[in-house]
Amino acid sequence: MSRGRFITFEGGEGAGKSTQLKRLVARLEAEGRQVVATREPGGSPGAESIRELVLNGAADRWSPVTETLLMYAARRDHIERVIRPAIDRGAWVVCDRFADSTRAYQGAAGGTDPALIAALERFILEDVRPDLTLIFDFPPETGLARATARPGAEMRFESKVMAFHERLREGFLAIAQAEPERCAVIDADDTIEAVEAQVWSTVQARLAVHG
Amino acid sequence: MSRGRFITFEGGEGAGKSTQLKRLVARLEAEGRQVVATREPGGSPGAESIRELVLNGAADRWSPVTETLLMYAARRDHIERVIRPAIDRGAWVVCDRFADSTRAYQGAAGGTDPALIAALERFILEDVRPDLTLIFDFPPETGLARATARPGAEMRFESKVMAFHERLREGFLAIAQAEPERCAVIDADDTIEAVEAQVWSTVQARLAVHG
Repeated sequence: MSRGRFITFEGGEGAGKSTQLKRLVARLEAEGRQVVATREPGGSPGAESIRELVLNGAADRWSPVTETLLMYAARRDHIERVIRPAIDRGAWVVCDRFADSTRAYQGAAGGTDPALIAALERFILEDVRPDLTLIFDFPPETGLARATARPGAEMRFESKVMAFHERLREGFLAIAQAEPERCAVIDADDTIEAVEAQVWSTVQARLAVHG
Repeated sequence: MSRGRFITFEGGEGAGKSTQLKRLVARLEAEGRQVVATREPGGSPGAESIRELVLNGAADRWSPVTETLLMYAARRDHIERVIRPAIDRGAWVVCDRFADSTRAYQGAAGGTDPALIAALERFILEDVRPDLTLIFDFPPETGLARATARPGAEMRFESKVMAFHERLREGFLAIAQAEPERCAVIDADDTIEAVEAQVWSTVQARLAVHG
């Protein structure tokens, strides 16, 4: 059985990633592919319990460095128990957020030493690297308006200032620029259907999907 | 105000570390020193919540690598919020377990890559290194008998096999051998009073305490 593929969705809050992820999963399943839809932080029982620890409580409960370590603990569990086994059995794994979110949130926006993050990527991800990363880009003001309007919205990151979101956006765009073979920027400031069309044509072109 | 000191207690379960720690703290306080007694994993509210996550549940709930990251997340919080501020204000910090426990438990006994652990020590501990580490050494069979007889004993590590405890002991002794300036081996297979005398004479000799 051939190795599966690993696609990650990245970007700030309110980019419509979750909606787009469901639509991509439906398209891939309609082609008869085995798909595993997952998310970070979380995605395995252990990682979900770490997620609760990270996202609940006051915004300054954890320093950016501690948060980086917690995110990587959750990521390692998710990789070991969900992502790697799925890829090994030939499934396509589509994950809402992955390592680039740590680079952008705790790194570019939070100030964590990029050398620490690079070391964690090397030791913790090992060979589990995305085949394709879609970076959902949009003006921070649009995303914040969408995210805070959503019922049950995770308010933790939303409560941080606009400057944080600008650094975050720049962080994600810098990743896309540094790794153009792996990453594609999706213009998320458009209708759901228009964004969906961009996502599908990018997946077809980059991963040779003939849907 | 002069910088404080940082003393760590290390060794397998049932070495009598907690009892000895209390006695050392009492002796240092009797000399008029400001002492902070703490422990790992834990020692700060955030780190204690990570401790619960690590120590509860099935023994295989976390892989050794994930456990290493959780231990370092807890350690970073403990350093930032308790250890570093205490040392900076001139206190003597006496900590039951610290970084050497990760080297021994998750590393020597658990099989985590020593290069990952070394990278975490560099990025996470930074300059917060013990001035003195007392390694409580004893035959594993003695320690296990003591630990499992204790009311409310933490059964998680105790349930692991004797071979694990042998690797653990070797791991701790290897640290003492590699860093003799920082570490002193305490023969913990003796009466409480005899061990207490060893601890006190070592602290006096190594840290120039004139009690």
